[in-house]
Amino acid sequence: MNEAKFTSLNEFKEILLSLPIASSNLKDRALERNNQLTKPPGALGRLEELSVWFASWNGNEAPIISSPQVVVFAGNHGVTSQGVSAFPQEVTAQMVLNFEHGGAAINQMCKTFGAKLDVIALDLDNPTNDFTCEPAMSETDCIDALRRGWNAVDESSDLFVAGEMGIGNTTSAAAIANALYGGSASDWVGRGTGVDNQGLKNKYLVVAAGLEKNPSAIGDGLEALRCLGGRELAAIVGSIASARSKSIPVILDGFICTAAAACLEATVSGSLEHCVAGHESNEQAHKELLKRLDKKPLLSLGMRLGEGSGAALAIGVLKAAIACHSGMATFAQAGVSED
Amino acid sequence: MNEAKFTSLNEFKEILLSLPIASSNLKDRALERNNQLTKPPGALGRLEELSVWFASWNGNEAPIISSPQVVVFAGNHGVTSQGVSAFPQEVTAQMVLNFEHGGAAINQMCKTFGAKLDVIALDLDNPTNDFTCEPAMSETDCIDALRRGWNAVDESSDLFVAGEMGIGNTTSAAAIANALYGGSASDWVGRGTGVDNQGLKNKYLVVAAGLEKNPSAIGDGLEALRCLGGRELAAIVGSIASARSKSIPVILDGFICTAAAACLEATVSGSLEHCVAGHESNEQAHKELLKRLDKKPLLSLGMRLGEGSGAALAIGVLKAAIACHSGMATFAQAGVSED
Repeated sequence: MNEAKFTSLNEFKEILLSLPIASSNLKDRALERNNQLTKPPGALGRLEELSVWFASWNGNEAPIISSPQVVVFAGNHGVTSQGVSAFPQEVTAQMVLNFEHGGAAINQMCKTFGAKLDVIALDLDNPTNDFTCEPAMSETDCIDALRRGWNAVDESSDLFVAGEMGIGNTTSAAAIANALYGGSASDWVGRGTGVDNQGLKNKYLVVAAGLEKNPSAIGDGLEALRCLGGRELAAIVGSIASARSKSIPVILDGFICTAAAACLEATVSGSLEHCVAGHESNEQAHKELLKRLDKKPLLSLGMRLGEGSGAALAIGVLKAAIACHSGMATFAQAGVSED
Repeated sequence: MNEAKFTSLNEFKEILLSLPIASSNLKDRALERNNQLTKPPGALGRLEELSVWFASWNGNEAPIISSPQVVVFAGNHGVTSQGVSAFPQEVTAQMVLNFEHGGAAINQMCKTFGAKLDVIALDLDNPTNDFTCEPAMSETDCIDALRRGWNAVDESSDLFVAGEMGIGNTTSAAAIANALYGGSASDWVGRGTGVDNQGLKNKYLVVAAGLEKNPSAIGDGLEALRCLGGRELAAIVGSIASARSKSIPVILDGFICTAAAACLEATVSGSLEHCVAGHESNEQAHKELLKRLDKKPLLSLGMRLGEGSGAALAIGVLKAAIACHSGMATFAQAGVSED
């Protein structure tokens, strides 16, 4: 019933142009509530902004978070044939099994914070094309992945996190960032799962070659996604847009998730107003990418795992913020003197 | 059975000199486990250090956190007669009622992360002395409060947080920091619950007057606590030492809690090895205080509420770290290729 309705990138863009915006009425009411709670004004710091922002999307001035959903999308990348990762491509499928068996970090995070976890493997036996030779995906492939992402978001979720697994995908993410924001490859390339200095230099060359081979990607969000991205990145894009269509707030994860999100913002400015940055990853260029999107991360703990793990950790922060906002007594209720 | 055995500050110091240390054997085993988990080495960033540190105190290489305990200590301060707070002293007792009725921020945090919350009001009708005129506490008063703190820690807790409520206590905390680390009052005084610029200048003068009146506090942890602190600060000191005696890891809260903790470190170096800094408060001097103690905060969200709220929020981070450490599959278990 809320299935993706687009069948082309142009139709997807049309949908982005008509997504809902936050309720300013609810924002005002949530702000008013916040100002009456038993604490000095502003004493909960960013938790206060967070809860007002969340309420403005959630549709309730005193919301609860009872159904957070995390979806990990997995995809394989043709560009791994260029030796860009410290791990072999088989690890993508092995990690999908690990997610399904409950053995990965994201499983423990979801258990800790009561989030539902779905895992969607996207055609792992059929990696995307090597983007140094041709576009990573045809429009059909890209739309398929966008639709998978769109359809993965439950209407009943009250908070959404998109995670990813895909050997080689920090290279894709760096290429997208470079295509959208310029500079040189070395501004956007990092060590990913842990390549050495020679591997890093190789990644620079691969990203530069990708941009040269795909000029349509330069400065164009959806073309950057199609030509330099991967199925899991396109699915993330679809899922973030889908969450917006349902007014579900999103916590962004690290470098790869944020690069995917940047494709949305580059396509239609304001597309990420329903998103907060869960953390600052240790992947070198994430900080700069967040700056470009004007997103201030909630956490900065040196994580660089992907899987949605940084964003899932931030679910705890958001839950606590909302619990305070909606559960605290007002000065009047508690009989506490205001200054 | 684990009641406080000290009846003088000298006896308390004796106890501090014989507190247990972390198990290096467990640390090694936890490190070994961490290195086998299905993630690139180091990809969980500070969560990895945290879980190894926690395991080294907990006594299990794959620990769980099932019984976190938060205790909020409340006390009143004679120094409020110097006009150092934006709120009247009655608010301390009013907030204690709010804690007891479940309406404060700390109640919601504890519910969110499954922590037990105890509230201990320390002789609120009998504020400490105004430290600009005489020592805040006699040795007997100070020992009483240290003992209350010591006895508040459950032996069955696996993680401990000490929070505080006490109108005027940022002034006490600033005075302690100034007595222990030198500099001028303005280096350590901040706005607390929100005094204006004139209030801030007044706090400088009050702190400076306190140090001048109590020369025995300079550079002496337990004298600084007695002369410039308050009952809730002394109770925090007692509780942190008590947690150490039981090898229970502690998350430190904001400026006031950290100033209390600094009294322990100044008395016996190494006393805070079982403590991690939960957050960096927005109270101006907290950052510097954490630096002096060589503690790097887990969170930095602009909070400045006290009550243990910042540390309680960090319980979520620690729970997630331990859940990953103890719940993740190893490469061998999951059949995932290492690089």
